[in-house]
Amino acid sequence: DPQQLDMAMNREREMRRFIVMDQNVDEYYGSKVRKYFEANNVHYKILSLPTTEETKSMDLVLSILQEVHSFGIDRRKEPIIAIGGGVCLDIVGLAASLYRRRTPYIRVPTTLLAYVDASVGAKNGVNFLQCKNKLGGYTPPVATFLDRSFIQTIPRRHISNGLGEILKMALMKHKGLFDLLKSHGKYMLDTKFQSHNGLVNHGDAALKTTRLAIETMLEELAPNLWEDDLDRLVDFGHLISPELEMKVLPSLMHGEAVNIDMAFMTYVAHENGLLTTEEKADIIQCMKGLELPVWHEDCNLHLIKKALVERLKHCGGQMRMPLPSGLGMAEIFNDISEETLERAYKLWASE
Amino acid sequence: DPQQLDMAMNREREMRRFIVMDQNVDEYYGSKVRKYFEANNVHYKILSLPTTEETKSMDLVLSILQEVHSFGIDRRKEPIIAIGGGVCLDIVGLAASLYRRRTPYIRVPTTLLAYVDASVGAKNGVNFLQCKNKLGGYTPPVATFLDRSFIQTIPRRHISNGLGEILKMALMKHKGLFDLLKSHGKYMLDTKFQSHNGLVNHGDAALKTTRLAIETMLEELAPNLWEDDLDRLVDFGHLISPELEMKVLPSLMHGEAVNIDMAFMTYVAHENGLLTTEEKADIIQCMKGLELPVWHEDCNLHLIKKALVERLKHCGGQMRMPLPSGLGMAEIFNDISEETLERAYKLWASE
Ligand SMILES: NC(=O)c1ccc[n+]([C@@H]2O[C@H](COP(=O)([O-])OP(=O)(O)OC[C@H]3O[C@@H](n4cnc5c(N)ncnc54)[C@H](O)[C@@H]3O)[C@@H](O)[C@H]2O)c1
Ligand SMILES: NC(=O)c1ccc[n+]([C@@H]2O[C@H](COP(=O)([O-])OP(=O)(O)OC[C@H]3O[C@@H](n4cnc5c(N)ncnc54)[C@H](O)[C@@H]3O)[C@@H](O)[C@H]2O)c1
Repeated sequence: DPQQLDMAMNREREMRRFIVMDQNVDEYYGSKVRKYFEANNVHYKILSLPTTEETKSMDLVLSILQEVHSFGIDRRKEPIIAIGGGVCLDIVGLAASLYRRRTPYIRVPTTLLAYVDASVGAKNGVNFLQCKNKLGGYTPPVATFLDRSFIQTIPRRHISNGLGEILKMALMKHKGLFDLLKSHGKYMLDTKFQSHNGLVNHGDAALKTTRLAIETMLEELAPNLWEDDLDRLVDFGHLISPELEMKVLPSLMHGEAVNIDMAFMTYVAHENGLLTTEEKADIIQCMKGLELPVWHEDCNLHLIKKALVERLKHCGGQMRMPLPSGLGMAEIFNDISEETLERAYKLWASE
Repeated sequence: DPQQLDMAMNREREMRRFIVMDQNVDEYYGSKVRKYFEANNVHYKILSLPTTEETKSMDLVLSILQEVHSFGIDRRKEPIIAIGGGVCLDIVGLAASLYRRRTPYIRVPTTLLAYVDASVGAKNGVNFLQCKNKLGGYTPPVATFLDRSFIQTIPRRHISNGLGEILKMALMKHKGLFDLLKSHGKYMLDTKFQSHNGLVNHGDAALKTTRLAIETMLEELAPNLWEDDLDRLVDFGHLISPELEMKVLPSLMHGEAVNIDMAFMTYVAHENGLLTTEEKADIIQCMKGLELPVWHEDCNLHLIKKALVERLKHCGGQMRMPLPSGLGMAEIFNDISEETLERAYKLWASE
């Protein structure tokens, strides 16, 4: 059919967008998003999905791709859009990276955690055989849209959860960020990270905090996008927490488990002479202000050692333990003795 | 258990290798491969699978990864090994690229096609929703082992199939390679691409041919590993063949469909004044010598136009048609008229 050939050669295609949205996000913001696309004359399809740790699987990736395929997009010009928390962004990122050997995609993070963490870097992934993010890759989005207003509808505990990862960057790399969290943590929780004018005492703490968190994260991730370097400060809080999270699932959120790990490590750093008693107290105090747990009874010495054995296996036989060496500074250690761990644990448990 | 901690810290691990082998390859070469690993004290597991176009799916990728996971490998030091044709290499490449966000792998091609084509470049993939290689990525292997002796057990028709892709590179880029195929094609088919001394007339044609084919392919692929540039000479023979292959499946092999496409395009080039009548005849003659089909009745004008419409869709509205402009030289055209196509078809059909 020569006419079809002509048409295909000359046509100006209408704009088409395929969007995957977390189901809860759809409930709050779906109608707004639909209005936006309609106002802009975009031919769109929104796939609204329950994107949770339980559905985060290759199965869901494939069913997304089935829909993408039947909707039909131009792999060169029509990026897939993901709107949701870290789970949604991770699943869609992987789906896009696989489709026709890489289709562009855009991230729209809607949780605090995703805003500061999953928005940065190239990682994606799904769970496999009961292992978290066992399958995945590194494919950066073509763009990330940052809009803090999504955070308004996040439950308070989930905001604390996101604050755990921000605190991690603060402790490792940025005293100023730590001070912001210490002074304005409760206020930011109360105001759900929105910007408010006229509250002189707090300035625009939420804006400053999220900016600094993202900058610090970028600084750390950019030179190591493919994670070839195993000495990673971003691993702080992630040595013991995987084991703990798995054991007590689903009672602890990820950021909470990370914070318990960081609390213990703060004691390890103290025992190792890296933090003064005041600095240690300051850190624990700040954690409490962010409404993050600083202790869990299942996080006992046995579990800690088991987790560190796993760590050794995955890090080429070295511990690579990031520890704060002051407020907002850190180093990576391979020679922390069992004795130090035991003394730190004793003190941590007693306080 | 502190002892376990100590052990993990200090152990020298034995060598471990996970191998995926095509089932037919296993029948011919499995015992040799097993002996090799045993002689080298490697703790190994060979997963012998029917890797065919029908099983080339994400399902098979996941079941391979399940086995990899239960065998257990060190993602840093123990590459997965794929031994087989292009299907096996493609599946394992994708599996490895997904596992723990990238596990190294090694390619051992055992067909002529895989030897000269799938051995080069970073591509991998599986079929999805009846579409060839719809899912996949670009992850280069850490190494490719080239051993022509595998080709001894390939059926004659499959060798011709591989010759189709070699001829493609010859027509696009290398007159010397074309001359080798023209003069020694039948001989190489007869001797299954093995090197034989003493046959003065043919020198080591197989060695020269495969070397040149790989070099030419590398030269073409290396600057465009991610295929961002859509103007690709390697697409020659791949504009109409996808449609034809799909229509007549499974009666034509891939390289055969490619060759029919190239034969038609040779007539298009001739109609367009790019090839003399002698050059055209030379090319068709060479194809016949390689025992490749130069015509198929289902490859009619309707199918050709339909395939080109698809091409336009996937190439951002441009045809990007590679055509030979002499022997071993080519250019990419966007302005071939329907009339030229029709005249070329008429002549092709009549000869
Ligand atoms: N790729 C990366 O770099 C990266 C970084 C950090 C975390 N992650 C991944 O992110 C996941 C955790 O992300 P998460 O904490 O965002 O979890 P999540 O995506 O599971 O979201 C948590 C909950 O919040 C709901 N939700 C999302 N946005 C909302 C909104 N605006 N209002 C109300 N409810 C909303 C969701 O429906 C869900 O129930 C983990 O799987 C982790 O592996 C990835
Ligand atoms: N990744 C790339 O760059 C790339 C390039 C070209 C082709 N491919 C892919 O490769 C596939 C075609 O590859 P193929 O032609 O090697 O097909 P194939 O892998 O299906 O193998 C063809 C047949 O030969 C058998 N076989 C393999 N080695 C043998 C040996 N030494 N002796 C006897 N029999 C043997 C196999 O069991 C199979 O039945 C396609 O799926 C194509 O998409 C990939």
